[in-house]
Amino acid sequence: MIAGIELGGTKTVVATGTAGGLVHEEWRFPTTTPAQTLAQALGWLAERGVPEAIGVAAFGPVGIVKGRPAYGKVLATPKPGWADFSIVDPLLEAFPGVRVTLDTDVNAAVLAEAKLGAGQGVEDLAYITIGTGIGAGILSGGHLIHGALHPEFGHFKVPRMPGDGFAGVCSFHGDCLEGLASGPSIAARWGTAAADLAVDHPAWDTEAWYLAHGALALLGIVSPARVIIGGGVSQAEGFHAKTERILNEIAGGYFLPLGETPYVVPPLLGQQAGIVGALLLTGV
Amino acid sequence: MIAGIELGGTKTVVATGTAGGLVHEEWRFPTTTPAQTLAQALGWLAERGVPEAIGVAAFGPVGIVKGRPAYGKVLATPKPGWADFSIVDPLLEAFPGVRVTLDTDVNAAVLAEAKLGAGQGVEDLAYITIGTGIGAGILSGGHLIHGALHPEFGHFKVPRMPGDGFAGVCSFHGDCLEGLASGPSIAARWGTAAADLAVDHPAWDTEAWYLAHGALALLGIVSPARVIIGGGVSQAEGFHAKTERILNEIAGGYFLPLGETPYVVPPLLGQQAGIVGALLLTGV
Repeated sequence: MIAGIELGGTKTVVATGTAGGLVHEEWRFPTTTPAQTLAQALGWLAERGVPEAIGVAAFGPVGIVKGRPAYGKVLATPKPGWADFSIVDPLLEAFPGVRVTLDTDVNAAVLAEAKLGAGQGVEDLAYITIGTGIGAGILSGGHLIHGALHPEFGHFKVPRMPGDGFAGVCSFHGDCLEGLASGPSIAARWGTAAADLAVDHPAWDTEAWYLAHGALALLGIVSPARVIIGGGVSQAEGFHAKTERILNEIAGGYFLPLGETPYVVPPLLGQQAGIVGALLLTGV
Repeated sequence: MIAGIELGGTKTVVATGTAGGLVHEEWRFPTTTPAQTLAQALGWLAERGVPEAIGVAAFGPVGIVKGRPAYGKVLATPKPGWADFSIVDPLLEAFPGVRVTLDTDVNAAVLAEAKLGAGQGVEDLAYITIGTGIGAGILSGGHLIHGALHPEFGHFKVPRMPGDGFAGVCSFHGDCLEGLASGPSIAARWGTAAADLAVDHPAWDTEAWYLAHGALALLGIVSPARVIIGGGVSQAEGFHAKTERILNEIAGGYFLPLGETPYVVPPLLGQQAGIVGALLLTGV
């Protein structure tokens, strides 16, 4: 039995399935306290058998590099009770000897899209999600990028769109990419939630401008062959094409990977990417 | 016999040595036409024996991913005669069956610094070079990052330093990182070559500000445990500490890898990094 757990900020998904990403059975429930959330997932699994491997896709920041002191733990997070909580220990207690593979939710999503979604056959792939925050998972030469901690794609600084004086909403940085282009940023800037903005609202030009600059930094640092943009805020009609158009303008004909079009695409797996990726993590 | 070739824009280095990076004998000569440059390097090697493996560290853009149509070729470059030239074919003609490993000069340098220099024991390491251009080599989990082409670190956009109205010198992008902070940019901005600027000249505050923003993007995308900055323009006293100070300010306490200090450091291998890295490439 292969199991997957997607631990999200507001909802948790637990599933049985295959290391190839096929979901046999799944259950979605609200994320509460860490101990209760893990106990619910493990109780559901125990009713179905003893997994040989569990893939876990977790919200960050989280220690995902084996052998480091922080491995398995949720790190500094504003979510009450979660900081320093070990996600891995309860799994090993419930199922001694189980093989656990832990990664970020966005790395699970990029893996799922690479194997079964909008990035099939692409070994150098980036998956950006725009929602409450902005994050990215990156596959480089078929390997998931971790680094010393893991990417924190929302928190570097991009140039200001000419004429944009909005201060940004990130509590750490104000006007980092997340501060200027996350869902809460759109709501604060325009006074309307992203979901309620018309497709021809200028908000989408601003949003595409900032995401294009984020994608340009990806090209400069990891050279993806394709960039997937998902998450609730990315679903306005034409948003991906608009972002790609601006990206091509600012790239100035310099970046060869942009020759493969479409370059900026929506995900194919939608809400399923996280749990499918969690199952796939067991095979990494 | 193990050989290394560092193919630079102005000088080429050829060496015999070990896959562990020890140089036995080396020869430096000016880079001329592609055919002549390769012939000189191969002639020098042939006098010393038949190498079983050759590591090549080349200026970019260059096709470094095996199996792709562009593999082994120099791509779009302003250097006359070099575009579309295959670096690998002449090596295989001269020494049939020789094992060739080709990578960028900056990836060779980050490998050398990780094994024998300022990044010993660090598996997530970035090496930025500032000279005529700006580039970076990146080691992630001990693997060199390639992507669909390879990183082009100088060519993404960073925010403007407040009050800075300089247009930038990049012929493709104007004010990308390279356009705002390369050696030619410093010379154009201040009317004085970087090498002739006093260590307390405000140019170094500007330079550190831009490099700190480049390093912040690295933290957001590949999360290095340490950043080495080398190249001719990085050698002003105090430059690395100043860059780290600004990086900490703009990071806002958010990025855990910055806790390991010093975080921004000079290279240890200097001019030798390229050829040592070329030898090390034979063991990758």
